[in-house]
Amino acid sequence: METFQLSEELLKKIADLILAKKNTPLKKIVKDVHFADMAEIINELNEDQGIYLIKLFDSEKTSEILTELNEDVREKILKALSVKEIADAFEELDSDDAADILGELSEKRKEEVISEISDNNLADDLKELLSYKEDSAGGLMAKELVLANENWSITKCLKEIKKQGENVTRVHSIYVVDDKQKLIGRLSLKDLIISPAKKLIKDIYIPKVDSVNVYEDGEEVAKIMSKYDLEAIPVVNNKKQLVGRITIDDIVDLIKEEAEEDYLLAAGVQGDVEADDSIFELTKARLPWLFLGLVGGLGSVFILEGFEEVMTHPSYKTLFFFTPLIAAMAGNVGVQSSAIIVQGLANDVVKGSLVSRLLKELGLSLINGFILGFLTILFGLATNLPIELSITISLSMLCVIVVAALIGTSVPILLDKKGIDPAIATGPFITTSNDIFGIFLFFYIAKIILGF
Amino acid sequence: METFQLSEELLKKIADLILAKKNTPLKKIVKDVHFADMAEIINELNEDQGIYLIKLFDSEKTSEILTELNEDVREKILKALSVKEIADAFEELDSDDAADILGELSEKRKEEVISEISDNNLADDLKELLSYKEDSAGGLMAKELVLANENWSITKCLKEIKKQGENVTRVHSIYVVDDKQKLIGRLSLKDLIISPAKKLIKDIYIPKVDSVNVYEDGEEVAKIMSKYDLEAIPVVNNKKQLVGRITIDDIVDLIKEEAEEDYLLAAGVQGDVEADDSIFELTKARLPWLFLGLVGGLGSVFILEGFEEVMTHPSYKTLFFFTPLIAAMAGNVGVQSSAIIVQGLANDVVKGSLVSRLLKELGLSLINGFILGFLTILFGLATNLPIELSITISLSMLCVIVVAALIGTSVPILLDKKGIDPAIATGPFITTSNDIFGIFLFFYIAKIILGF
Repeated sequence: METFQLSEELLKKIADLILAKKNTPLKKIVKDVHFADMAEIINELNEDQGIYLIKLFDSEKTSEILTELNEDVREKILKALSVKEIADAFEELDSDDAADILGELSEKRKEEVISEISDNNLADDLKELLSYKEDSAGGLMAKELVLANENWSITKCLKEIKKQGENVTRVHSIYVVDDKQKLIGRLSLKDLIISPAKKLIKDIYIPKVDSVNVYEDGEEVAKIMSKYDLEAIPVVNNKKQLVGRITIDDIVDLIKEEAEEDYLLAAGVQGDVEADDSIFELTKARLPWLFLGLVGGLGSVFILEGFEEVMTHPSYKTLFFFTPLIAAMAGNVGVQSSAIIVQGLANDVVKGSLVSRLLKELGLSLINGFILGFLTILFGLATNLPIELSITISLSMLCVIVVAALIGTSVPILLDKKGIDPAIATGPFITTSNDIFGIFLFFYIAKIILGF
Repeated sequence: METFQLSEELLKKIADLILAKKNTPLKKIVKDVHFADMAEIINELNEDQGIYLIKLFDSEKTSEILTELNEDVREKILKALSVKEIADAFEELDSDDAADILGELSEKRKEEVISEISDNNLADDLKELLSYKEDSAGGLMAKELVLANENWSITKCLKEIKKQGENVTRVHSIYVVDDKQKLIGRLSLKDLIISPAKKLIKDIYIPKVDSVNVYEDGEEVAKIMSKYDLEAIPVVNNKKQLVGRITIDDIVDLIKEEAEEDYLLAAGVQGDVEADDSIFELTKARLPWLFLGLVGGLGSVFILEGFEEVMTHPSYKTLFFFTPLIAAMAGNVGVQSSAIIVQGLANDVVKGSLVSRLLKELGLSLINGFILGFLTILFGLATNLPIELSITISLSMLCVIVVAALIGTSVPILLDKKGIDPAIATGPFITTSNDIFGIFLFFYIAKIILGF
């Protein structure tokens, strides 16, 4: 299987057919295109073309395309669809997907769509799902699941599953509840098939079942499911009653989104932006971190002013040429240290005390610092730098590297202990503070050694 | 459900019981601990304790714990286990997990373990799996799957599935093959249950089935499975014969690993390292990028030397105080631009020509540059900087920001076009080159404006 590659040709052909309103050849072309690929096509078309195209499909395909569209394109398409068309599409979707899209509508439109939905159960389910926070277990779960009462016979259970199964895209487990809807166990479809038909569910179910609370944080759910290799997990309310289930495909999306946000955050880009977002949104995501860099940079102006007298010294003024090197080293080392710690904290591999962690980082940065310092002395020899200046620069740089590593290591650990996401520490925050600190330390140590 | 939290107390209790060789209470404590949590405990114990503990379990539990251990701990444990013990453990595992662990053994030990495995099918499967590259579809797939021949009746199929199902942890789809083992379609377990029992498989199977070639790159498989929301995908050889299947839990691990590597790479840490790795491994991962930073920093020494005469000018020497600011701005902007492009390329959202992309970045960086430049002029007014100097600094900085953004945008796109992973462009590579370029540009433009 090849991933679908959207060609300029195909796009042009589709756009031309839309322009000429030739629906029959258009339908023929898009008939066998997977809905995820169809969404890619619509993402690329202009607004009117996209709306024209999506109106060609029945509500089942429309609904699936809607779930895969880029958020800004979906917003425009939803505006062009009637309340009835949206409601029809929702009736084809799993409740979690429908709730996600519904959440993007205005309050007024939300209510209109819900009241247009003919299936009362679905309307109630959507209202319930909307009441949970987006990134909580409740916000991630779907209401569709297959459950069995412990008092059913296997025959009755099989019949019920056939009925319930029609609404469920994939059956992972059959959840077993008591008469009060309390989750008490599970039943695998495989076990159900290979068991003798006469038994009761209470005789054959597995009483051990993992579940998460409906208010649990989504990231925590992802951790649990990926650690224990679960493909689905039931969700219970505070009374331990079964209220929904989360499947691994939603978790895959969550893991990818979180990873992307962390990646961008480490590069000084805040929030959930993409290359295709508007200039305004991208500026909003980037400017705050650049502002932080500006403040840091202006701060280092003062520090360098404090060492102004060095500039008039015949050979010590060379120190000023090394400021970008020192700033770069302090920044690079700090970002390395913090990235490793942030990653380690996310994977729970940062064990032991802060002190032992810092000792390790001390050793590591001493090794790196000595090697880099030695190379700098060689550079000094090659460029005829006075030897006492070379040694001074190398020693100060060594100190800067050690301190930068210790800051990069301790800041995320301390943030994590205070319950703040340590990911914000990597990137501009560490770079900026290490820049200032590194430059100050460099000149200060040089001053002590050289005695100016 | 709570994630298991490994307490110091529990760890101490277990270590004490191991020391006292009190197996009965020890077994009682660990009886209900999930194997993933058990692995966490063993990761924390010292080598001898871990080996003592793992030998208490039967081969089923041992095998599952082995799959979850940290790689370095697993290496030690495997050394302490006999060839027979490892072979027994492998017989309990899915073939993909067994092959992954087997791949970590020395060539000699590999052969010994394989020849000790009593199940000839498994031995052959493992040999086959080891022949594929680790990150290819073949390296990710398991041999366990449930298949049906198109000529079987539903009754025969159900009987076969019961038999085959015993070896398969989770049944996602039943793959349908012809007499030559060629994959021709699929059958969902649900469909099988709700179909009338008399039909033949060829009457009810779904002829549309996604599959990947056994040599396909793992990242590509992850993209396909996550885009099309697949929980399992069959793997075929060049003759289109069914040879295995990949499940979503392996893909979750792959996605997480890739994201972690990209994150660390952007921070200048190369390769698959963790906070708990040895100082030597961490140095190997960090030093090369620091060396790059050193070369860049030493390069900027020459650039600054070239503008040495500015140092003697009564007011223009202030420019030197701004070098860390300029370097930071060039670095930060470049990293932001490249991170957004790298992320966009990975998600296939970077569309359109390089020129249109650069025009957008031009607009974006002009906005950011003007705002930051304006703030810098305010700073100059507040600190009594001569106004022509403030304006010069702001204008030069604006140019640096624009150029840094354009470099940050074009480098990953060009790398990607040349088939090189654009992720290496974010981080130290862009920071370092933008540092040098930014400082040069800053002084050069200042020189033109101020005419020194």
